[in-house]
Amino acid sequence: MAHIKALVFDVFGTLVDWRTSIAHHAEQQLAPLGVRDDWLAFADDWRAQYQPAMEEVRTGRLGYVKLDTLHRRNLDVVLRARGHHAINDATRARLNLAWHALQAWPDVAQGLSALRQQFVLGPCSNGHIALMANLARHNGWHWDAILGAELAQDYKPKAVVYTTAAAALDMAPHEVMMVAAHSNDLQAAAASGLRTAFVARPHEYGPNTGEPRATVPVDFEASDLPHLARLLRLE
Amino acid sequence: MAHIKALVFDVFGTLVDWRTSIAHHAEQQLAPLGVRDDWLAFADDWRAQYQPAMEEVRTGRLGYVKLDTLHRRNLDVVLRARGHHAINDATRARLNLAWHALQAWPDVAQGLSALRQQFVLGPCSNGHIALMANLARHNGWHWDAILGAELAQDYKPKAVVYTTAAAALDMAPHEVMMVAAHSNDLQAAAASGLRTAFVARPHEYGPNTGEPRATVPVDFEASDLPHLARLLRLE
Repeated sequence: MAHIKALVFDVFGTLVDWRTSIAHHAEQQLAPLGVRDDWLAFADDWRAQYQPAMEEVRTGRLGYVKLDTLHRRNLDVVLRARGHHAINDATRARLNLAWHALQAWPDVAQGLSALRQQFVLGPCSNGHIALMANLARHNGWHWDAILGAELAQDYKPKAVVYTTAAAALDMAPHEVMMVAAHSNDLQAAAASGLRTAFVARPHEYGPNTGEPRATVPVDFEASDLPHLARLLRLE
Repeated sequence: MAHIKALVFDVFGTLVDWRTSIAHHAEQQLAPLGVRDDWLAFADDWRAQYQPAMEEVRTGRLGYVKLDTLHRRNLDVVLRARGHHAINDATRARLNLAWHALQAWPDVAQGLSALRQQFVLGPCSNGHIALMANLARHNGWHWDAILGAELAQDYKPKAVVYTTAAAALDMAPHEVMMVAAHSNDLQAAAASGLRTAFVARPHEYGPNTGEPRATVPVDFEASDLPHLARLLRLE
């Protein structure tokens, strides 16, 4: 592992708790309008549209558009499905920005700060550049560069997203390690030549719903980011 | 000026003193090999190849390549022209990375830190992402996102570089202000709808060789970055 120079991160689920954040923002913005709902279920429904929407781009049926565009289209689907028809465009646009203000898991700011002493850090997320910059401001993170879907003009787990991230850092794929809480993301990164680290987020979709362990071979497996920092210092 | 949300920066000359930095690195790396030269003249000659090399990309005669590739080709030209023929490839490759370790002008770290309290910040440079990330590490800067030539796959002053920077921030061009020490850069940014701020770097090419004042209309004109921060707080 002597030649790892950079760590690139999945963000939704791995660094931020999108589920309770989205539930909170939705309740804050819609409840004052008289909307009643199960807000965690609302968040789950919105997130459930995420992979199918990206698949349109990954298959080439739709040219690359930023995640905001997909989130907004998905929001319309969810509001309709849950019977909330009287929400105007301005409210929808504002609620869509909830994805730019998600709360990090409690270990992340400290963990990234420790890791940055040793490695170049960047997100390799399906979120676009502005969304990543806003999440970093919101949570006090310091990225060296924002990598990911917008730079590659395609969505993970397509190989081009991982290889574009390494190339943008002037690094070979094996000098870059993908950090994620999702085995499929790490499997795709490894197939592109990146090193991989699994970080457990067992409560991503609610208590004991996330992956407790990687289901694919990985280079490192950690319980949180400070744990990962300790593992990497021992190498 | 109430709606400026982001500042994007020219880097070579505006934030870093490329001339004495390159002279220093060249002397450090080549003098021990027995090479004698006027190192400031060496730096000037290397830089003189910069615009012609980018023009190959801007005109479409050459597809986009990172600035490292152009710098390396230009280095070969300069070494040949100055009679230094016996420099091997490894030395040339190492010297080429001198552009990743340029020293900032003394006001920059403090100035960027003050400006970041109020604005989203990013470089909008012809340097590529890895070079920008390395310069930021070297000088202790905190960018929100790295914008510029690599993202646009073309070189300033082509309009696409400025408009791509604003679009990547999810902002309209008039919400973004280009900060530079070069009137031609600001003129091109303004033509794309960005606001503009001139920062004087009168010694860029040696004592009293830079532009003391903008030669085109600009929104702000400052003597250094802390001065710019003060001007923007008064708006």
